[in-house]
Amino acid sequence: MTKLGVKIMPRKVILDSQGRAVEQTLKLNQMNVQHVRVGKFIELEFQQNKNDALIEARRIAEKVLSNPLIETFEIVEME
Amino acid sequence: MTKLGVKIMPRKVILDSQGRAVEQTLKLNQMNVQHVRVGKFIELEFQQNKNDALIEARRIAEKVLSNPLIETFEIVEME
Repeated sequence: MTKLGVKIMPRKVILDSQGRAVEQTLKLNQMNVQHVRVGKFIELEFQQNKNDALIEARRIAEKVLSNPLIETFEIVEME
Repeated sequence: MTKLGVKIMPRKVILDSQGRAVEQTLKLNQMNVQHVRVGKFIELEFQQNKNDALIEARRIAEKVLSNPLIETFEIVEME
């Protein structure tokens, strides 16, 4: 069993409206933060070994989970 | 400048309807995955040093970003 994470973030050139809303809320509440971006984290569990799972996770992230026009993704090894 | 991530995932006992929808879509498309969970990833940038930023990030995650009834969070160091 292999567990991998896919971290998907809005591209830096894209206005991240969720991130901006969270940032403003935190600043209004006197929390000491400079900048916020909001993305997704998707955990995938595979029966394959790590090498095969990494290939499959990349395919899934590219084809289904992310929109390359507005997002970038990164595969993260877990455990 | 310190950059930290807050990874927020649904608790295991909670039905993760987004994760289930993604899992079923992947399986219907012959993608080789066993289980999927969908969470959030929030990047926070601080002017403070790492120790102070870690304390502030934990406070922000607990008070604003996560709902402890249905979610768990984890602070992730970046860069």
